[in-house]
Amino acid sequence: MLFCNIDLLDENFERKRGQYVGVKDGKIAYIGDAEPQEDYGERYDGKHRLLMSGFYNVHSHAPMTLLRGYAENLPLQRWLGEKVFPFEDKIDDEAAYYGTQLSIAEMLASGTVSFSDMYFFFDGMMPAIRESGIKCNLSRGLTVFDDSDYENLAAYKDNLRLLNEWNGEMGGRLIGDLCIHGEYTSTPKVVEAVAAHAKDAGARIHIHLSETQTEHEECKQRHGLTPAAYMEAHGIFDSPTTAAHCVWLEDEDFDILKKHNVSVACCPASNLKLASGYANIPKMLEKGINIALGTDGAASNNNLNIFQDIYLFGVVYKGFYHDSTLLTPAQVLHTATRAGALSQGRTDCGKLAVGYKADLCVIDTDTPQFTPMTDAACNVVYAAQGADVRLTMVDGEVLYRDGEFKTIDIEKVKAETQKRTDAILRRL
Amino acid sequence: MLFCNIDLLDENFERKRGQYVGVKDGKIAYIGDAEPQEDYGERYDGKHRLLMSGFYNVHSHAPMTLLRGYAENLPLQRWLGEKVFPFEDKIDDEAAYYGTQLSIAEMLASGTVSFSDMYFFFDGMMPAIRESGIKCNLSRGLTVFDDSDYENLAAYKDNLRLLNEWNGEMGGRLIGDLCIHGEYTSTPKVVEAVAAHAKDAGARIHIHLSETQTEHEECKQRHGLTPAAYMEAHGIFDSPTTAAHCVWLEDEDFDILKKHNVSVACCPASNLKLASGYANIPKMLEKGINIALGTDGAASNNNLNIFQDIYLFGVVYKGFYHDSTLLTPAQVLHTATRAGALSQGRTDCGKLAVGYKADLCVIDTDTPQFTPMTDAACNVVYAAQGADVRLTMVDGEVLYRDGEFKTIDIEKVKAETQKRTDAILRRL
Repeated sequence: MLFCNIDLLDENFERKRGQYVGVKDGKIAYIGDAEPQEDYGERYDGKHRLLMSGFYNVHSHAPMTLLRGYAENLPLQRWLGEKVFPFEDKIDDEAAYYGTQLSIAEMLASGTVSFSDMYFFFDGMMPAIRESGIKCNLSRGLTVFDDSDYENLAAYKDNLRLLNEWNGEMGGRLIGDLCIHGEYTSTPKVVEAVAAHAKDAGARIHIHLSETQTEHEECKQRHGLTPAAYMEAHGIFDSPTTAAHCVWLEDEDFDILKKHNVSVACCPASNLKLASGYANIPKMLEKGINIALGTDGAASNNNLNIFQDIYLFGVVYKGFYHDSTLLTPAQVLHTATRAGALSQGRTDCGKLAVGYKADLCVIDTDTPQFTPMTDAACNVVYAAQGADVRLTMVDGEVLYRDGEFKTIDIEKVKAETQKRTDAILRRL
Repeated sequence: MLFCNIDLLDENFERKRGQYVGVKDGKIAYIGDAEPQEDYGERYDGKHRLLMSGFYNVHSHAPMTLLRGYAENLPLQRWLGEKVFPFEDKIDDEAAYYGTQLSIAEMLASGTVSFSDMYFFFDGMMPAIRESGIKCNLSRGLTVFDDSDYENLAAYKDNLRLLNEWNGEMGGRLIGDLCIHGEYTSTPKVVEAVAAHAKDAGARIHIHLSETQTEHEECKQRHGLTPAAYMEAHGIFDSPTTAAHCVWLEDEDFDILKKHNVSVACCPASNLKLASGYANIPKMLEKGINIALGTDGAASNNNLNIFQDIYLFGVVYKGFYHDSTLLTPAQVLHTATRAGALSQGRTDCGKLAVGYKADLCVIDTDTPQFTPMTDAACNVVYAAQGADVRLTMVDGEVLYRDGEFKTIDIEKVKAETQKRTDAILRRL
């Protein structure tokens, strides 16, 4: 595809007007003022459009769209114990299949090209991800409370099966990560076993870390260590890791994350809605930690529209830390794009630059909210909506365009998801 | 118009399925399960649609869309002094006309039926508001620093002219409010004069109150009173008042607001983006204060899409006050609808109930983000986008439908606004 005479946000999120961008073999092959000689296939009219890197949503639980609007306005422990866990007990692979497709549809429609997911029901999730064409770092949310049989647990086996069989499938679009759900849902022996496996396999790890004050404090009581220090002590951070939330980090924790190049998946919507708190973004920025962005699952957000999280990330920490200069639009967009790609180990992704993978989105700027176009990056962060996305491309393939999903039967997915949710609700 | 077989959110924000809603003479004339005998004109197919009260945006500065993306990432005083004031000096009535139309377009497209605005350039704003058909409580942002000539100030005269000439125009859609911009931009004598005029005229008042800590503390130093106590002492609250922001209220201030039935225009987006802080919503709820919602101007938001503020209002105070049970979706939607109408003195508005004004919006629920439809109010607050609005009706007149503005030449407005902004920027 050749994007013709289009405005773009370059790798520094500066607006360049009237550019030509050629995509070939899944990569960005040409960017320039002048129309290229080479034939890039279909021509895309760039009038009133803004081309930029697609978004990387690095913490989600895709099938949880099934729970959207079901477990509301409860304290976290009751939310989990009374609502989420009993519902999840009733999910099956087929429900997970449709719930995952629905999540992917919502993500594609708002410009997300890749996501990192931690969940279960892989026999349902995997086909949904493969068929969609989106990128995904998928990991089994491993929870083990008993040392004696952890190796036999289906969960752990699923995890290894994923890692061994699916890693690098779909032209590398699928990456199998390893996972410890969290300190409070595992044992030191399990943590060490996962750390050892990750090291052997050269895999990445996805964990929850210091999401709530309770989790953080109880870990210190149990082990005399913060969750970050605990994960470090047991070898998790010897492999590249993405740690979700990181709301309650203490001083030395920031140094631990930085030392091991741990990426943080900041999830502002979820942290606010579940009242988990405000991550210390200024400290993370000061330490140079790689901060990426996650929506978390639809049960705690309740949407997978990354523009909502981009906006939240852009404004709520200013308010909380009483500093209106905190987080420029360019920093926010870096967080939602390149930082996410890096947290997934996708070094050739997340940048609108020649040689990088063509993971792109096109935004309609012919709208009231994009007028005037004084600062395009500002408009994307503070004024845009997910629905302003007109095209989402992954590895050069158009997966979403002008309301149409190229790989998802959206009418069927909506109907089937509603049906599965209704069926589960009837059984609760 | 007769909405046929449509789901709706009733006055308690409960979902009722398959309803018929008849609109006649600008009012909601019929709601029921059965198709009415009476002829209500055009039939609207309610399939996959949700009908609810439109939204009331009770604090804005409409022409500030001209400044969208212009004054960014600065501390408040530099934002105002170095950027906003010099830009505003260059605005003229024509620019204000297009900026206001653009604002109204953005509001209508996201379901807003009425707004309360405080600004100047009325010769530009007024025609824009009249032509659009939206409701508006308009007030001149009065700033006077010198007692000796305040009566002669054009600003004040504008204010009175508005009040006398335009009040109740457009079938009551336009209401002229009086205004004190704020304590720090006035003198006690001016405040008392406005209070007296409001009382004489039976008018409402719109003010900024305790937006920033600096403003709040400096008022106490100057007068030995908090801004709320100061406004009370000088008679402002003897007339029905909407006080914007109210971020830094102290204990006794809440009682003052409650005692005088002052409405709060909570502006979460602006308060976060400018790092003003977090309003004490739990205390306001405890005292039973009427909390309504405002976007503030586009320079500090940067959009007029009320869904963004609904979402923020719904989640950020949960996070800040560590209470995930704070603010149910019904409370949030009440804030964005009925509470706003009451703050404007429009007692017959803001409710989807027979006899109330037909200020309505229709939301498309046939989207990934509205699936599953387990809790419709939750979906509206936490999952919807402004772009999900398909129809906005004011006093029974359709002003926006399926991307089309019935009263605004949107192509012209976008082009002219861009042109005026560019012209101002060249002169700065």
